Amino acid sequence: MESHDFCGHIQFNDRECSLMLLDQRNLPLKEEFVTCTTIEQLVLALREMVVRGAPAIGVSAAYGCCLALREAGGEDGWQETLEHLLQKLEAARPTAVNLRWAVNHMRSVRRSNGDISWEQLKELWVQTARNMHRWDVKANRAMGEHGAALLEDGDVVMTHCNAGALATGGYGTALGVIRAAVAQGKRISVIANETRPLLQGARLTAYEMVQEGIPVHLACDNASSMLMSKGLVSKVIVGADRIAANGDVANKIGTSGLAILAGHYHVPLYVAAPCTTVDTSTPTGADIPIECRDGDEILHCLGTRAAPFGVEAYNFAFDITPWELIAAIITEQGVLRPPYRQAIAGLQSARFFEGSEN
Amino acid sequence: MESHDFCGHIQFNDRECSLMLLDQRNLPLKEEFVTCTTIEQLVLALREMVVRGAPAIGVSAAYGCCLALREAGGEDGWQETLEHLLQKLEAARPTAVNLRWAVNHMRSVRRSNGDISWEQLKELWVQTARNMHRWDVKANRAMGEHGAALLEDGDVVMTHCNAGALATGGYGTALGVIRAAVAQGKRISVIANETRPLLQGARLTAYEMVQEGIPVHLACDNASSMLMSKGLVSKVIVGADRIAANGDVANKIGTSGLAILAGHYHVPLYVAAPCTTVDTSTPTGADIPIECRDGDEILHCLGTRAAPFGVEAYNFAFDITPWELIAAIITEQGVLRPPYRQAIAGLQSARFFEGSEN
Repeated sequence: MESHDFCGHIQFNDRECSLMLLDQRNLPLKEEFVTCTTIEQLVLALREMVVRGAPAIGVSAAYGCCLALREAGGEDGWQETLEHLLQKLEAARPTAVNLRWAVNHMRSVRRSNGDISWEQLKELWVQTARNMHRWDVKANRAMGEHGAALLEDGDVVMTHCNAGALATGGYGTALGVIRAAVAQGKRISVIANETRPLLQGARLTAYEMVQEGIPVHLACDNASSMLMSKGLVSKVIVGADRIAANGDVANKIGTSGLAILAGHYHVPLYVAAPCTTVDTSTPTGADIPIECRDGDEILHCLGTRAAPFGVEAYNFAFDITPWELIAAIITEQGVLRPPYRQAIAGLQSARFFEGSEN
Repeated sequence: MESHDFCGHIQFNDRECSLMLLDQRNLPLKEEFVTCTTIEQLVLALREMVVRGAPAIGVSAAYGCCLALREAGGEDGWQETLEHLLQKLEAARPTAVNLRWAVNHMRSVRRSNGDISWEQLKELWVQTARNMHRWDVKANRAMGEHGAALLEDGDVVMTHCNAGALATGGYGTALGVIRAAVAQGKRISVIANETRPLLQGARLTAYEMVQEGIPVHLACDNASSMLMSKGLVSKVIVGADRIAANGDVANKIGTSGLAILAGHYHVPLYVAAPCTTVDTSTPTGADIPIECRDGDEILHCLGTRAAPFGVEAYNFAFDITPWELIAAIITEQGVLRPPYRQAIAGLQSARFFEGSEN
């Protein structure tokens, strides 16, 4: 794996059975890791967004299953303890389907291996989690190749939040497409929407692009209409936290507004996501649970109080973009075009363990 | 004038010929005043947004003319010095037409009084500036009465930036309409968009609403689409920095996007502004100069660095909302409906000095 896959932000240590996560709350100013050895620690890290982004949450959760197994111990009754811990893990955040998907995948790997011992399961799960991590990077690279064909030399691509290496196992979904186009020799520049309240665009997307040497401008979330009206945006690419069976997309709050503006200004908006983000058991966007986070995130900016006391805040973390507003969904299996229902139904499941990662 | 006109944020002291401005950069956490006695100080205060909002800039500039006159002194050649200072003053910020308008009005008052002495002019201008200040509050109250008729009991009104008492001589334009509706006994609640980069919504609008006891929720600028999609917004009211002859509106960056979203979700968007914000010499929005501010405002949040080094930022302070997206323009002379060209041409000029304020 090449260095600019940026895979080092999620590191699992077999011997200690510990998960080291680059603390994304403090980027770009500090590069510090948080070490998790228990499910309680990992759930907190997920909730506080030490690690975030649907595919990165999925990969972390897969390693988290190994933490849960270690925590359950090898004594009698470990199976019940394990299941209890897995349920705590998958409830950490509600919207990104990759979390539940990863935990369910680990469960199914266990089931399909019959009545194996605690020791055998540990080895199997560590291997599965590592494969899932590798597969995710590989999927992002495939997505990058498919998506890069949609970008032209000279494009200015607006993106929202961070759908980069840090949001995935490595390389990135939306930013992976940009990376792949740049690797093909296309001159691409990026407009990163800062993405309040937690400023993942300013802190993470801008950071990845600067490290990569890809030209990047930062803009406030409210500047999109102005920038599009001036012809400064040629494409929009975002990631996804969950894609429903009809192609409706849950993604970071602001995405649906961006899609409406893109439609108004005739700028195509693309969603880049692996099949692990697709949830065919969710019929439409209306069925996707939307996380409401603490209003304090809105009342503050980077830890400093902005608003007076006595004010409440709305803090929906995601919104739903209707499929009609999405010009294409870029997956590792190819580029889907609307209407999406049939194309989504035809996607193959990711297969991590049976050698598909090679 | 009633206390909740909040007129005290712009105070002129005749004896000392000084202008005290409530420092809006530090609200709501600190209530401190900046005192200006020279044009250099006032220009800096305007640029750094100690005082902001088109009508408040206009009122401050009118008092500023008195500072300029004092600074020009009464010696030979004061007229040239004065004109030089007035030109510096009117160049402080480019978009809000009220600044240039106020200075031009002071010039015309001088001209229409013939060859008067420095002392006479000083008295005349202080009186004119005070009248302009009083007129502005009165205009806002009239605007409030006209606009309140558009609001219904139970409405949830989204507003952007701060078009309140602090943005005007007092009482407010958009927030004045809300105040007037509440005074009529209508139950109105407010959603204040925080309005990056300087967070006037979080810091100033929320502060005014809390002081007034009007229920207010804060939201990130990127949440508007989500909130509208959930039916949580029944009306949008914003202020204006300049209104062109055809009804196109320059207002805080984000307004045009909000107008497109409001159109998409069938939520009416109203603009509230006095006739001093209308510039019939600007044919359309495309002719309005848009201020570009320092990118550092975007790279930071409340003084803390958000973005990595090596990133540039777009910082257009305003955008243009096409007249077609505006359901009505609320002025002190009544509610205008699209198309606006004829209605705008029919507006009467504000007349401050000749007793019209009484």
